[in-house]
This record gives sequence, structure tokens and C-alpha cells, in this order.
Amino acid sequence: MYRIAADALIIDNPDAPSQVVLITRKNPPYQGNFALPGGFLEPRETIEKCCIREAKEETSLDVEIVCIIGVYSDPDRDPRGRTVSATYLCKPVGGSVEGSDDAASARWVSLDEVKDLDLAFDHKQMFHDAGLI
Amino acid sequence: MYRIAADALIIDNPDAPSQVVLITRKNPPYQGNFALPGGFLEPRETIEKCCIREAKEETSLDVEIVCIIGVYSDPDRDPRGRTVSATYLCKPVGGSVEGSDDAASARWVSLDEVKDLDLAFDHKQMFHDAGLI
Repeated sequence: MYRIAADALIIDNPDAPSQVVLITRKNPPYQGNFALPGGFLEPRETIEKCCIREAKEETSLDVEIVCIIGVYSDPDRDPRGRTVSATYLCKPVGGSVEGSDDAASARWVSLDEVKDLDLAFDHKQMFHDAGLI
Repeated sequence: MYRIAADALIIDNPDAPSQVVLITRKNPPYQGNFALPGGFLEPRETIEKCCIREAKEETSLDVEIVCIIGVYSDPDRDPRGRTVSATYLCKPVGGSVEGSDDAASARWVSLDEVKDLDLAFDHKQMFHDAGLI
């Protein structure tokens, strides 16, 4: 039995991506670090609904899923215990970026800037797997 | 906390797919039904290793992952309890098809034939999502 999470890689324009929404984490682990918005699956929701809900809670954006990037399942990827993440490429369809819930803040960051940032967990790998950096 | 499984959609040729490996299920639920090979994630393996291991155990084929098809997480998709499946398109790289372990049998089936079959769980949806039927 495992925890399951969804993470949202929200890009400004799927056809010509230049910016992504990053949060700063309010709580441990990786408190204060940049990260993708995301969180744990609830008992009666699908993983896609979880992704859209967590994106909204943490960034105030309404998003749609564009496609799946991958499933991240290294046994040691989360210091809280075994957590498998499904990560989706998303695009905004409403709202404007404001951090809330588990996000101390949220903002658009250029993909050029992401290359030089340390991100929480294995979130930087997700950018590589999506072909964005 | 959830169970996590990997399922393998093994096609003969990723560039021109015409056949897929189906098993018949040895055990409930869906005992005797056609299904994709697959099974539950073990504590210290990644989901990709799980997919490759289960494909080998149930079909005797060595496979490589081509790409992810999707994550299947409807809360009622498995009568045994909440189970989230990551499903991968795979290609054979060694061995020949022979059912074993949880598979009563395994064989190559044409994609034309799959259209008319009842498959266990939501496995038919995976063919649609992969653009194969």
C-alpha cells in the first residue's frame, strides 16, 4: 500500500512553452524550496481530478490536462515515505496565479530560469522528461 | 494508501502494430477473461521494473517499455479494492510467449480481434487511449 500524488507542470502555451508555474513549499520536506504544485490523491477522486484540484488549491489557476509526462516511483523519492507521483503537463484555462494552501507563494518562472534552480523532490527530472529543459 | 499496479500492452511492432499479447486470467476477479499482463508494485521496485517483471512472469517475454499510455484510477475499477494502474506500451526483446504465474495462458492476438473481445477491468480503454483500436 502506497501513497499516490499528482503533480502539475503548468505551462503558458503547450505549442510554444516559455514559462511554468512554480510554488515555494510552505511545509517540510523541502520547506521554502521551489516545486511543482501537487498533492495526495483522495479516496474517491481520479488522479486527473487530483491534479486539477491540487493545481487550483496551490496556484489559484483553473487548469486542463494536456498529457501525462510520467509516473515517478523511486522508492526513496519522498522522505515522508513511499509516494508514487503521476505528473501531468497542464495549461491554464482561467484565474491568475496566487499561492495558497500548501504553497507559500506561486509565480510564473521562465524555463530558462528553471535550468538553474534547485527543485524539491525529483521535480527537475519531470522538466527533462517533458523535453522542456 | 492505495494499491498500485503496472500493466503491459505488448505490441509486436511499435511502428506498425498488428498484434498484442493477451493473457487469460487464472484467478478471480475476471477469472478466465482476457486481460493485459500486469500486477502489483513491490516495495522496493520502480513502476517500470514492476511492468517488465510482471510481463515476464505472466507471458515469459522479455520486454522494453516504449512509452506510458496512462494512469487508470477510477475508484471502482477493481472489485478487490482501490487500485491505481500505470499502463505502458511495450515491445518484446526476447523470449517467446508462454503463459505462467497468474496467467492460465498467453498468446498473440490481432488488434482486429481485440475490438470484439471483452477484456478484464478497464483494459479495453487502454487500447483506445493508445490509439490501437
